[in-house]
Order: sequence, then structure tokens, then C-alpha cells
Amino acid sequence: VMKYWKDLLDFASKAWEMGRSDPRKVIFAIKMGLALSIVSLLIFWKKSYHDIGQYSIWAILTVIVMFEFSIGGTFIKGFNRGLGTLFAGILAFCFAELSLLAANLEEVVIVMSIFIVGFFASYLKLYPTMKPYEYGFRVFVLTYCILMVAGNRTGYYNEAVATRLVLIAVGAAVCLVVNICIYPIWSGEDLHNLVVKNFKGVAASLEGCVNGYLMCAEYERIPSKILTYQAADDPLYKGYRSVVESTSQEETLLGFAIWEPPHGPYRMLKYPWINFVKLSGALRHCAFMVMALHGCILSEIQAPAEKRQVFCSELQRVGAEGAKVLRELGKKVEKMEKLGPGDILKDVHEAAEHLQKKIDQKSYLLVNSERWEIGRRPKELEEDPQGLLDAKEHDNMQLGFKSLSETVLDLRPVTTACTSCAPQSASSDNMFRDQASWPLPLSFGGHGVIKEDDCRTYESASALSLATFASLLIELVARLQNVVDTFQELGEKADFKVPVLNAPPTEKSGIWPW
Amino acid sequence: VMKYWKDLLDFASKAWEMGRSDPRKVIFAIKMGLALSIVSLLIFWKKSYHDIGQYSIWAILTVIVMFEFSIGGTFIKGFNRGLGTLFAGILAFCFAELSLLAANLEEVVIVMSIFIVGFFASYLKLYPTMKPYEYGFRVFVLTYCILMVAGNRTGYYNEAVATRLVLIAVGAAVCLVVNICIYPIWSGEDLHNLVVKNFKGVAASLEGCVNGYLMCAEYERIPSKILTYQAADDPLYKGYRSVVESTSQEETLLGFAIWEPPHGPYRMLKYPWINFVKLSGALRHCAFMVMALHGCILSEIQAPAEKRQVFCSELQRVGAEGAKVLRELGKKVEKMEKLGPGDILKDVHEAAEHLQKKIDQKSYLLVNSERWEIGRRPKELEEDPQGLLDAKEHDNMQLGFKSLSETVLDLRPVTTACTSCAPQSASSDNMFRDQASWPLPLSFGGHGVIKEDDCRTYESASALSLATFASLLIELVARLQNVVDTFQELGEKADFKVPVLNAPPTEKSGIWPW
Repeated sequence: VMKYWKDLLDFASKAWEMGRSDPRKVIFAIKMGLALSIVSLLIFWKKSYHDIGQYSIWAILTVIVMFEFSIGGTFIKGFNRGLGTLFAGILAFCFAELSLLAANLEEVVIVMSIFIVGFFASYLKLYPTMKPYEYGFRVFVLTYCILMVAGNRTGYYNEAVATRLVLIAVGAAVCLVVNICIYPIWSGEDLHNLVVKNFKGVAASLEGCVNGYLMCAEYERIPSKILTYQAADDPLYKGYRSVVESTSQEETLLGFAIWEPPHGPYRMLKYPWINFVKLSGALRHCAFMVMALHGCILSEIQAPAEKRQVFCSELQRVGAEGAKVLRELGKKVEKMEKLGPGDILKDVHEAAEHLQKKIDQKSYLLVNSERWEIGRRPKELEEDPQGLLDAKEHDNMQLGFKSLSETVLDLRPVTTACTSCAPQSASSDNMFRDQASWPLPLSFGGHGVIKEDDCRTYESASALSLATFASLLIELVARLQNVVDTFQELGEKADFKVPVLNAPPTEKSGIWPW
Repeated sequence: VMKYWKDLLDFASKAWEMGRSDPRKVIFAIKMGLALSIVSLLIFWKKSYHDIGQYSIWAILTVIVMFEFSIGGTFIKGFNRGLGTLFAGILAFCFAELSLLAANLEEVVIVMSIFIVGFFASYLKLYPTMKPYEYGFRVFVLTYCILMVAGNRTGYYNEAVATRLVLIAVGAAVCLVVNICIYPIWSGEDLHNLVVKNFKGVAASLEGCVNGYLMCAEYERIPSKILTYQAADDPLYKGYRSVVESTSQEETLLGFAIWEPPHGPYRMLKYPWINFVKLSGALRHCAFMVMALHGCILSEIQAPAEKRQVFCSELQRVGAEGAKVLRELGKKVEKMEKLGPGDILKDVHEAAEHLQKKIDQKSYLLVNSERWEIGRRPKELEEDPQGLLDAKEHDNMQLGFKSLSETVLDLRPVTTACTSCAPQSASSDNMFRDQASWPLPLSFGGHGVIKEDDCRTYESASALSLATFASLLIELVARLQNVVDTFQELGEKADFKVPVLNAPPTEKSGIWPW
């Protein structure tokens, strides 16, 4: 018993916490209670000519099913309810006349009609485009049955239909008035915030991935949740996963938002909510690249740390600039501002170009030239460490950014390292961190030593993985263009404000002494 | 009017088509109609001591809200309805006693209690873990209100509660009997089929991507639907998108399936449905790689066709073997068989290894060595076409597979090609197919000619994109291991049959003449 009591307390404290973190939920619950109480007052209206109280349950039912968290949801439900009830009323009227004509076959006609109505409503609601009206079909069948039952009992079909319609209208009116007039909760706003949140998430994931890659972040053991694409706590993973997973949420919110009247900052008939979803889709297209970048971190095949260091500053700059652009766009969406003059992508393009040039210059690091099958392989290239060291020093000058303690730049040429890459060598541990799952089955020689051949193949794969990372990053930059285009389309259609350009100077002028 | 009539006919024919393609939908509708008709017979039961007909609407209501497409869905709804009604009954009983005690404040107590019930139910249903019981909360509030209204009208709260509970039980019983006894539709089966379909989709997408890449399939203009991740008709895209998008569907089906009793081929208490979802998640992890491969086709930066041809047979083999493994696994899931002896991944690993070795040998094709900043650049390597030509001929021997007419192998060393890569050159058209959106802003020289510098950078990027494609493909192969592991876990837990090994020989023996 004590345990249950503790669970209950725990639950209560969590529920309280939920209310504190999102007061809208509390407000929603109060509104719902209020609407119900108002409608329930109808119960006590017994004095009039028609005994309204008897039918008051209809108004209550309407409130219970129509009252949704957001205004848009309430409108849709209300529309469904209204349409369903209306059609049911018309049909009930027709069949009632028929059953009265049938006289002593009345029961048979009623049962048959219920079967037919049930059949068609259930069948049509499975029709793909009818999905949003699923609820309407349910209401339709329910209302039809209730009307038939009530009419059959009292014999007055018409009155049964009319009274109920009036009470449903009363319930719907109470719903709408309470829901709209008291602290309205708009789906459109939620959608807007979701898109902003998505931008932040991708930006954080991107930065995290690039930095993680450069710091040679590795997973001791990849969480099986990531491998089976379930929700996990990994911050890199969470960022892009929530963006990829938000499609259905966006669809739902969009479905509600288009029903909402102009309000707040969205003062426009037919507000282009669909463009918010499109923007989020374009962002998702980028998020897939971030996902692929993360895949490089998850991969068994890892580029050696020394080589990553060579491209460190360039990769980092592209990552940081890309994240900056995403954050900037997110902020613009949040403030509903158009882009300022000047190309927002200029810096990131420049950074990508630098990365590309660096790769171009250093592409010998990305391949394993020893086994080129062309007769004269460029031996001198590998056997002259001095030349490389020069290049290395040159790098050091350029790097500038040295946050990583591992910047030892053990830049031995690839192939000399390879001869010592048997598992006992401590330095190659992180490359062979999990031999069992190295994808290409390493064939062990007679004495349990990995054949040098396979070893070299692994070497070359690991170096190429760095090229892959860089190339995915550049592709990500390319996809940013599409995000910017989609954003501009949204900005045009939704008539975002033009940003105030001289805001920063005026701010500064306050600090200046004169 | 004619137009509406035509629309209606069109709609009807589509609805008819839906029934033909999935007869379960028709059966469901018939079952629903049947259950409703049976319950509606209660209306005519007017002769007994209690006027049951008056309350028959409760049974009808129960059928309408409980009757779901699948057995699992019906169980969940039934559970929700039962629990909601029970709690509402208990609470109504308590408050009724209270209101009777309050005597002339009865109305106030009732309205207050409705407000409190509405508030708490609405608040708690927003609690994240309460999501599946959302419907239960609705029923709870509804039942509570109805009981209060009915009790208040007649003064007999207890009787009101009891009669309604009995009728709800009758409705639920009819629902369950009709839904289970007549052609049951199981969510578990749907989930099973969905997973099988996902395997086929990814296999088709993978094959399509690899083949498309080798045939240099390009998008004249990338459909904006792909760029904003909306549903599109592209077969490559559809395959993996549906897998990525099926998460929410799987969650729903899983939620239903775990409620279903053992049935059909799933004869086991607590059938491991969750493992089907996990398997699908592991497959999704692969699908993301296919998505990245497709990204290479969508990319602005395209590797030249000649180079692709060099790796053609290897790439194709990996793609084909990978797809074979996926199809094989899909078939095993479909037949619910365990894997046979022998490593299912052997062939694909071998193929990947070959690809890797080929890359290793030919990695000079993937980089642009001209700008290596090391003093002695291996000039001879580039200026001796003969050596390359030898290698090329060697390739031709190996290729074997020559479905593509473009196998011209114009294997000029990269850098010599570069000097002629200004846009007027026809052969480079497909590389520069859309300069405006080439991600790194090509700086045009004074005379509108692209600076050779940028041009080379582009060259090198385009060659690396081939490396990226290969490297992603190898990573995909690595991820297959995870799918196989997850499959084996499922096979163990769900107790799949051991495949009959000598089936092929016995089949053959029938053909042999003796």
C-alpha cells in the first residue's frame, strides 16, 4: 500500500510539474471544466413548456467531444459534428417517413436502415481522403441511431430531430465562445514554434557532429536504441531525430492551423501555413545530411585522428558557419523577419570552398597510394617524411584553433603505419576498436595475425571515411541553399517584415559617450 | 450539376476499387452494420418490467465507439470504455450521495462536481503517458455527466448507474463476439506485413540507387517535393521514404497488437511484437544510408561518368548482393523462418571487400593529385597515359558486366580534362548541369570564364563524390550486420521455425527421370 501511495505522490508531483512548465495545459483544463459547468446548468431548466433538461445531455455530449486543446481542433471537430448531425437528421427524417409508411413492418425497416447506415459509414470512413472526417462519420451513425430510437419510442420523429439539433448548436456555441474568448491556444503558433525549434535542433546536431568528429568522439558501444532508431538521450541524435520525426506532428498541426481564423501576428486570410511545413521539410532534407554525418561517427570504419586534425580548422569552420546560418534562419522565422540584404550563405560557402581546396591540396592523405596498380608508384612521396613534415608545419601555422590536446599530428605516411597495425599495437586500438563487427570479414592468418592485405584495405577505407565526412558536409552546405529559398518563399507569402537595418548602430550609439 | 454527378460517380468507382483491392474493408463494414443491427433489436424490447428499450441507446453508443478495424483496437477501446464507465459510476455514486445530503444546495454540488471532474480529466489526459487512455477520459467525463443528469431527473442514482452498466456490457459483448468470430482482422498481421513490405522497399530503393548512379541517372530538376521531403512518385524515393515514415504507423499497430490474444501463426502468450518494430528500426537505420546514397544522385556535384564506370561492376555487385540479403531477410520474416546455416552476409561482405580493394587500387581516380603541395608531385603519373591505358584495359577485362553503352572509359587523367572544363565544352555539360546552384560560388573571371582554380576545385569535389558513394555503400553493408542480429533476436524470441534444408533437393528429385 505504501508503494502505491508513493507512486501516486510521484505521479501527482509530475503532473504538477507539467502544469508549471506549460501553464496552457492548466488553462485548457479550466476552460473545459467551465464549459461543462455552463452547459450543465441546462439540466435544471425544467420549468418551460418543453422539458429542455431531458435533452440537456446532448449539449453536454457536444461539449465533451468538441472541446479540443487548440482552436483549430475545436473548429474541425465542430464542423464534423455539425455535418454528421445534419446528414443524420435528414436521413433519419426520410427513413422515419418510410417506416411509418411500412406500418407493421416498421421494426424491419428500422433495423435494415441501421444496418445500411452502419455499413456505408464504416466503409467510406476507410477511404483515404476521408480520414479527417472519421469523427464525423461516427457522429453521423450515432445521431442516426439515437434519433431512430427516440423517434420510435415517442412516435414524434420531427420533434426529436429539431430539439436535438438546437441543443447541439447550444453546446457548440458554448464550446467556441469559451475556447476562443478565454486565453485561446492556437495550433498555428505551435506549428511556428515547432519549426523554430527544429532549426535549433539541426544547428545543435550539426555543430555537435562536426566537433565530435574532430575530437574523435566514439561510442564504446553504440546504443542499440540508435541502431533501431528509437528515441535515445544522445544529444546529437536527439537533435536531428526530433526533426525527422516531427512530420506527423506538423501534419496534424497544419490540419488544425488552416482552420483557424487570422489572429495575433498571423493577420492574413489564408495564412500560408503550408509554407511553414515546406520550410520544415527543406530543413529535414538538411537534417538527413547531419544524420549521415553522425553515421560517420557511428561507423566501424574510423579515420585516424592525425588525419582529422589536418582538416580540423576547415571542417570546424564549415560546421560552425552552417550552424550559424541555421540559427540565423531560425531566429528570422521566430521574429517573422525577411532576410537582410547580403547573402546569408556567403560565409558558409566561403568556408566550404576553403575546405574543398584544402582537400584538393591534401588529397594524398585520403587515399592509400601504395597499391596503385600503375607500374611506377610514387615511392618517393611516401619515403620522404621531410616533405610531409614541411607540409605539416605549414598546417600548424594555419590551424590556429588548437583546443584539442591530441593535436600531436603523428603524420606518418599511411603505408608505413600499416605494417604495424596488428591488433597488439596500442596506437591502432581505436581503429580496430571492435574487430568482431568490422564489416568485411578480416581473414586471420595461421598465427592469428590479420593478413596485411586486409589490413591495408582497412587503412584505405578508414582514410576515405574522412573524405566522406567532408563531402557530406559540403553537400549539406549545398542543401542550405534550398532551405534559404524555401524561407524566402515563406517570407514573401506570409509577408514577413523587412528587418530594421540600422538597429545595431542605434543600440551602439547609446553606449557612445556623446 | 453534371460535374458534381461525375465527381460522385468517380468517387463511387474509386470506393468500389478500394473494396476490391482490400476486401477486409468491406468485411469490416458488414461486421459493423451487423453489430449495430443486433444491438438495435434491443429497442423493441419494451414488454419487460424495466423498460430496457429506453436505455438501449447505451448499447448502441458502446458499439459505435468500440468497433474498430482491428481486434486489438477494439480491445483497447473496450478497456478504455469499461474503465472510464466504472470510475465514472463510482464517482457519480459518491457525489450523488453528497448532493442528496446537501439538500437544497444539490444543484450547486452537481455543477461544482462537474467542473472538478472536467478539470481533472482534461488535465490528466494531457499527461504524456496517458495518451493511449485519452478516449477513456472522455468516456469517463461523458458517463459521469450523463449519470448525474439522469439521476438528478429521476432521483434514483443507483438504478441509473446499474442499468447503464449492464447495457454497456451487452454492447461490448456484441462488439467482441461479432468482431472476433467473423473474419477477424488482426493488427499483428498488419504489423508483420508492414515489416515485410519495408524490407522489399529498401531492397528496391538500394538496387535502384546503385543502378541509377551507375547509369548516371540525373534529375533535370530535382522535384521540389523531394527537397521538402513530401511524398513523391519517384520510385527510388518512395521505397525508403515509406520506411522512414512508417514509424508512427508501426507504433500504432504495435499498440494494438500487444492487446491481441494468440492467434493464427502467432501462437504464443506475450508474442514479441516489439521485436518486429525493433527489426524495422534496424532496417530504417540502413534505409538512412540508402537515403544518403540517393543524396549522391541528387547532389549538384556529380562524379564524371567515366570514373563511375571503372568501379561499375564492383558497385553493382555490392548493390545487388545487399538487395539480395534484404530480400532474403524479408522473405524469412514473411515465412517466419530462422536463417539457414551459413552466413547470409558472406556474399555481400565479399562484394564489399572487392569494392574496397578496387578503390584501394584505383584511389588515384578519386583525388586530384595536381595540386598536392608536396614539392615533387608525381608528375610522371599523370603525364604517362600509357600506364593508365594499360590499367584501363585491365579493367575492361575484369568488368565483365557491360550493360551500359556508355562504357567508353574515357580515362584521361583528371587534370588534363580539367583544362577543358569550361562550360562551352559539351562533354562537361552534365558536370555543370546547373551552375547557378553549384554550392560554392564560382567566381567568374573578367571574361565570363570560370577561373581555372575554382574549376579544379570542382573537379576534385566531383571525384570525391564517387568515393563518398562507395564509402556510404560500404557503411550500408556494415549496417546489415545489425539488421541480421536483430532478425536473429526476433527469430529466437518468436520461435521461428527452422528452415527445411533439403527442400530444394527433394524438389529436384521429382524432375529427375527415375
